[in-house]
Amino acid sequence: MFRNLVYNKSTKESREVSIDQLKAYLDDENSVVLVDLLNPTDKDYQQLAPVFGFHQLTLDDSKKEFHLPKLDDYPDYLFLIWHALNDNPKTENVENSQVSFYLGKNYLVVIHAEDLKILNEVCDRHAKSCKVIEEGADLLMHTYLDRMTDEYFPLMDRLSAEADILEDKIFEDPRTEYLKDLFAIKHKLLDIRKIVSPQRDMISQLTRFEAKFIKPGNLAFFRDIFDHLLRVIDLADSTRDIVTGAMDIYLSQVSNKLNEIMKKLTIVATIFLPLSFIASVYGMNFRFMPELTHRAGYPGALLFMLLVAVGIIMYTKKKKWW
Amino acid sequence: MFRNLVYNKSTKESREVSIDQLKAYLDDENSVVLVDLLNPTDKDYQQLAPVFGFHQLTLDDSKKEFHLPKLDDYPDYLFLIWHALNDNPKTENVENSQVSFYLGKNYLVVIHAEDLKILNEVCDRHAKSCKVIEEGADLLMHTYLDRMTDEYFPLMDRLSAEADILEDKIFEDPRTEYLKDLFAIKHKLLDIRKIVSPQRDMISQLTRFEAKFIKPGNLAFFRDIFDHLLRVIDLADSTRDIVTGAMDIYLSQVSNKLNEIMKKLTIVATIFLPLSFIASVYGMNFRFMPELTHRAGYPGALLFMLLVAVGIIMYTKKKKWW
Amino acid sequence: MFRNLVYNKSTKESREVSIDQLKAYLDDENSVVLVDLLNPTDKDYQQLAPVFGFHQLTLDDSKKEFHLPKLDDYPDYLFLIWHALNDNPKTENVENSQVSFYLGKNYLVVIHAEDLKILNEVCDRHAKSCKVIEEGADLLMHTYLDRMTDEYFPLMDRLSAEADILEDKIFEDPRTEYLKDLFAIKHKLLDIRKIVSPQRDMISQLTRFEAKFIKPGNLAFFRDIFDHLLRVIDLADSTRDIVTGAMDIYLSQVSNKLNEIMKKLTIVATIFLPLSFIASVYGMNFRFMPELTHRAGYPGALLFMLLVAVGIIMYTKKKKWW
Amino acid sequence: MFRNLVYNKSTKESREVSIDQLKAYLDDENSVVLVDLLNPTDKDYQQLAPVFGFHQLTLDDSKKEFHLPKLDDYPDYLFLIWHALNDNPKTENVENSQVSFYLGKNYLVVIHAEDLKILNEVCDRHAKSCKVIEEGADLLMHTYLDRMTDEYFPLMDRLSAEADILEDKIFEDPRTEYLKDLFAIKHKLLDIRKIVSPQRDMISQLTRFEAKFIKPGNLAFFRDIFDHLLRVIDLADSTRDIVTGAMDIYLSQVSNKLNEIMKKLTIVATIFLPLSFIASVYGMNFRFMPELTHRAGYPGALLFMLLVAVGIIMYTKKKKWW
Amino acid sequence: MFRNLVYNKSTKESREVSIDQLKAYLDDENSVVLVDLLNPTDKDYQQLAPVFGFHQLTLDDSKKEFHLPKLDDYPDYLFLIWHALNDNPKTENVENSQVSFYLGKNYLVVIHAEDLKILNEVCDRHAKSCKVIEEGADLLMHTYLDRMTDEYFPLMDRLSAEADILEDKIFEDPRTEYLKDLFAIKHKLLDIRKIVSPQRDMISQLTRFEAKFIKPGNLAFFRDIFDHLLRVIDLADSTRDIVTGAMDIYLSQVSNKLNEIMKKLTIVATIFLPLSFIASVYGMNFRFMPELTHRAGYPGALLFMLLVAVGIIMYTKKKKWW
Repeated sequence: MFRNLVYNKSTKESREVSIDQLKAYLDDENSVVLVDLLNPTDKDYQQLAPVFGFHQLTLDDSKKEFHLPKLDDYPDYLFLIWHALNDNPKTENVENSQVSFYLGKNYLVVIHAEDLKILNEVCDRHAKSCKVIEEGADLLMHTYLDRMTDEYFPLMDRLSAEADILEDKIFEDPRTEYLKDLFAIKHKLLDIRKIVSPQRDMISQLTRFEAKFIKPGNLAFFRDIFDHLLRVIDLADSTRDIVTGAMDIYLSQVSNKLNEIMKKLTIVATIFLPLSFIASVYGMNFRFMPELTHRAGYPGALLFMLLVAVGIIMYTKKKKWW
Repeated sequence: MFRNLVYNKSTKESREVSIDQLKAYLDDENSVVLVDLLNPTDKDYQQLAPVFGFHQLTLDDSKKEFHLPKLDDYPDYLFLIWHALNDNPKTENVENSQVSFYLGKNYLVVIHAEDLKILNEVCDRHAKSCKVIEEGADLLMHTYLDRMTDEYFPLMDRLSAEADILEDKIFEDPRTEYLKDLFAIKHKLLDIRKIVSPQRDMISQLTRFEAKFIKPGNLAFFRDIFDHLLRVIDLADSTRDIVTGAMDIYLSQVSNKLNEIMKKLTIVATIFLPLSFIASVYGMNFRFMPELTHRAGYPGALLFMLLVAVGIIMYTKKKKWW
Repeated sequence: MFRNLVYNKSTKESREVSIDQLKAYLDDENSVVLVDLLNPTDKDYQQLAPVFGFHQLTLDDSKKEFHLPKLDDYPDYLFLIWHALNDNPKTENVENSQVSFYLGKNYLVVIHAEDLKILNEVCDRHAKSCKVIEEGADLLMHTYLDRMTDEYFPLMDRLSAEADILEDKIFEDPRTEYLKDLFAIKHKLLDIRKIVSPQRDMISQLTRFEAKFIKPGNLAFFRDIFDHLLRVIDLADSTRDIVTGAMDIYLSQVSNKLNEIMKKLTIVATIFLPLSFIASVYGMNFRFMPELTHRAGYPGALLFMLLVAVGIIMYTKKKKWW
Repeated sequence: MFRNLVYNKSTKESREVSIDQLKAYLDDENSVVLVDLLNPTDKDYQQLAPVFGFHQLTLDDSKKEFHLPKLDDYPDYLFLIWHALNDNPKTENVENSQVSFYLGKNYLVVIHAEDLKILNEVCDRHAKSCKVIEEGADLLMHTYLDRMTDEYFPLMDRLSAEADILEDKIFEDPRTEYLKDLFAIKHKLLDIRKIVSPQRDMISQLTRFEAKFIKPGNLAFFRDIFDHLLRVIDLADSTRDIVTGAMDIYLSQVSNKLNEIMKKLTIVATIFLPLSFIASVYGMNFRFMPELTHRAGYPGALLFMLLVAVGIIMYTKKKKWW
Repeated sequence: MFRNLVYNKSTKESREVSIDQLKAYLDDENSVVLVDLLNPTDKDYQQLAPVFGFHQLTLDDSKKEFHLPKLDDYPDYLFLIWHALNDNPKTENVENSQVSFYLGKNYLVVIHAEDLKILNEVCDRHAKSCKVIEEGADLLMHTYLDRMTDEYFPLMDRLSAEADILEDKIFEDPRTEYLKDLFAIKHKLLDIRKIVSPQRDMISQLTRFEAKFIKPGNLAFFRDIFDHLLRVIDLADSTRDIVTGAMDIYLSQVSNKLNEIMKKLTIVATIFLPLSFIASVYGMNFRFMPELTHRAGYPGALLFMLLVAVGIIMYTKKKKWW
């Protein structure tokens, strides 16, 4: 589904045109062209390619369901693959949705498989006009990238809060399922890093280029995105720190639990092994054991065992065995 | 609550004016204007915005209770969100209080929700004049930022000292509550990093700009703040090092305790299992057991068991089992 | 086996020539020469050296089966040793195959011991022509290096997926063989780093040189390879992170298992030690033990022991000993 | 206690003057002035300040007993707070002694509370002249900083050697007191980092300045100090590595000890539990137990138990249970 | 033992001269002078110093048996202390042998205590001539440094291989002596870092200098050494990674072993505690125990105990207790 918007800098008006009419505006310095192509079919690609003259390799890459972020510098345009966070708070899954950009002198082509809210916030597919287009193709792309970047911050907050809660739970009770949740967060962080880290490098590369398609005065805006991506990585690292810390707590709590178990075993053994020994002594079959024939022998032995038990308990309590 | 101070460079005098009179001074190169807006209401914002022409987005950000530090570069002013430490030694809580700055050519607007001591130390809201305003709007902002930055140092010292004390306590007795205290410190450090690290980047960005609103000769002062923020992060990292080390001590002490418990169990079992066995032997019902009918059988057996017990104790002591 | 291809920039045609005819084309500015030498014999080297005047040391290095990546800058050519991944999914082995390059003003010599698919994808040994040669010797080498670099990405994906699977398996059951598999992955990652890290430095060195043999406009392409190599190292580090995490899980699961074992021992001891003690008491040989002569003595004692057992089980269950 | 030395570049002579006479030399381009103020009283400060016009804030800082290293850039002088190692091999304590410097165009003021050997090595308080003063005020300060920096190297060596020895001791016997010694070293290293790391930044800042008070040709000397401070941090990090490693050894040795203890318990239980069981069997009161009435019953049972014991010991030895 | 070689650039001939004749050649732009001083005596130093005018401090440093690598920049020469690896595969010891260099405009003085093979490979002490001298004093020093740097690579390979082997051994059997070997490797790596890391900084410093004694065109060669030293540090870090990993394996194997031991104890206790209890029950002295007087009582009890034992074994096997 195409949506082709042309903005005229002189008349300060924008209007939608069909894909066939588009070519005329590309050479007009006064026009800014935005093509927003949603869920493109092969036919759409066949219509698109001849108008702009895009390289087949870039079209192939943009068709792929998942391609690592990349930036290719062609003579007539820049080709970017970016990933929008398709954050689904219900499934708590971090999904990436690939968005491709072609930035030319006075046009921006955006190709995406999903009708993402975040893209519509920049230029609503269904609105007549788009404010941002008036600032030119380069700032239009900047706005897209900037919004997609800012999407990471609430996600980072959520992950960090989840890790905090898990840490508290593990302090209470070190269950293996909490450990699994921790490692799920860790994997999400690694996935984010895998996407954000090449995007950071791409932006750095973009500002290093002689900026054919970005006006020099606008480079600062892209450096801004670079700073934000750096921040995302920073936050990911600090959350990973919490995860690692929680893991350490888990290990220490498991060790603590072992100590508790062993204390119990030790107490039981320390009380009953001596008592059993005493009972065994009086179970010996010697003919001459004066205690055995005494009237008070049995209650005396029971009393003695009681005293031993109490003595052991008091001694171990005093010595802080438990 | 507004407090609007205007300093005249020629007459070297400063006086308070109402918000309505302010506009006249903004275009006067000879004036330096400071607006200190405490706990602003919506009405205050409505009065403020038209005078300076601030962008609505910046006003929205400054109204928020918590926004990550940020720096926006507008044609007529710089907009900063900074966080002042509202260090409360009693509650031992690290609280951040958000402060917004608008730095224009010859004015500085400071918006804050709380009447912080640290802000009054720069320009007392209730004093007639303010020494620092004479150095210009850029150095005035520098002084604010510098003071707020220096607030971190005593806090870092306190956290580091707390970590040291916890380390010592854990050496004595590895309690779970000490571990919790350690992780509370760790979280404070991460919170500080989360605030300080973007502030450091903001200052770096500020000195990278063409410095529209900061005189080139004054950039060194901002680089100074950058150095201090770096130092804060350094100190946070070194305290985290102590926390991590204390965690290791905790684990080792828990292991040591397990060894102690197991030693006790081993000693008890090593003494009483053989003794019980001997008693059991003499409890066997064989008809022909010469020891049983002997007069000295019983005391002999007791003596034998005593000797075995002493032997085991001496052997294990010599072998350093305990 | 030589394959010598000469491309004429004026006629835009390429043709194969014998090694003896080659020298004529080297001084012709209009020609681009590609020599692809597969599995060279000593005789091949003797033919090659005098034509180009290569230094003996470089020939010796390229003859070696394994030499760390290196870059030597000679007056008339650059000499590179690179490593192609010879990824064999069946054996799951990471094998490196050494490829040597000589880049001169208008020629590129590629020496390799194995007929690698990845090299043929750039310039097929058996095809009549080669598209990439038309872009000049420097971009031809770039294409080789670029392709070989891109080979790492699927491998990194595979290693990362393997580490993920091992992590899950260890969560289920911490077997030593999984640990061995983890460390096999870790060693592969270290091997990759050992190769990729000097290659990254080489490319950085290449772009730092005054680029005698690389046209200034093409340096950006080499910087691109640098970025990709950085990415490979990034991915290796993130996979190593998973490996380290899985190792931590292993340790925690082993500790958990110990806890399980000790719980069992504790339960068994806690139930049977008291019971045995009771039985021992009634096995004592005191003459006056009223219970013994009672008719209900034996069933009473059994019942009592049952009650004790049930009491212990209920108490320990309630106290969550197990 | 003042010591004011004035060197005349023309006459190449130096002589001591009183604090009152000093002002005359400050404007004389031919003079180099060194003021060495030991353990200053408030009266000394009152004499000093008006002569040089030092800012009150700097005087306050230099009066403090402990202030983090800092560098302030004033129009007429640089103000530095540095820390000299007051290494006391006897107490094995790392003590820092604060030294303040004021570097002006042709003067250097050194303020220190203690009569440190390291300062006297540069310019002996009691000698008539001082060789280094001839090289100018900037190189004079360089010499002070350089000497104080070099003091760290023997200390780093000592700490590293101590850590090595502790590592060896822990291999032999993992005592908690060795752990405490390790952490004492770690804390010393953190303290050194806390001092050295801002000093490194100060020197870097110093060489970044337009070097008002340091001749451009002398900047290399300060960069030299920067390198040395980097080295100190390097050495601290490598010693910390040894400390961390020794900590790991401690943990592994504690685990080993637990294994030893548990082995012993297991051996004792594995031998005596079956033996006790056999004895218990023959202690049963069944009327028809043929073994009991047999003449060889008792010695046979003893022999059987001996065989069982030997069998268990041999089996467990073979199976490497111990 | 002196060996003084003078090369004449015009005649392209080199010849040996005595130390007294040397001074004449130092001012001759056409000459390149190499002084190779092996195991110098005090008398040698007294002969050397006046010829070149070396500073006493540098002579003192070069006399020391061990001095950290350093670089001093004097007006007439550079003074370097470097360390050659004196790799002794037999003793498996990493020994450093100190080499001092003085690099002047047209001379190089090399002072070393041991007759190292690696130095003779550059300029054989016993050969008549030396090829490398023809390239000038700076490249001559470069060749020395380069060779000494390359010596690290085989050592790094050996250490890495040793660590690999230890890792495998620890997987089999976690012995404390393997741990000691691991830490021996770790200490060697730290020692190498202690030498290589300042050498890297020295080379970086050398290329930062205005290169008084190194021709600008030759700086790239020194940058090459810098890269190699970086590589050595890289390899050291990756080997340390293996060492750390092997340490983790050690800990996990020790834990595994504990689990094995505890399993055995648990099995023994789980079988014999219930059996002993049953035997104890039939050892009770109740008058009315029907089983006792039954003919089949004893064999029945034995059978019952056998069934209980088999049941426990089967249950625990099924439940995977062992």
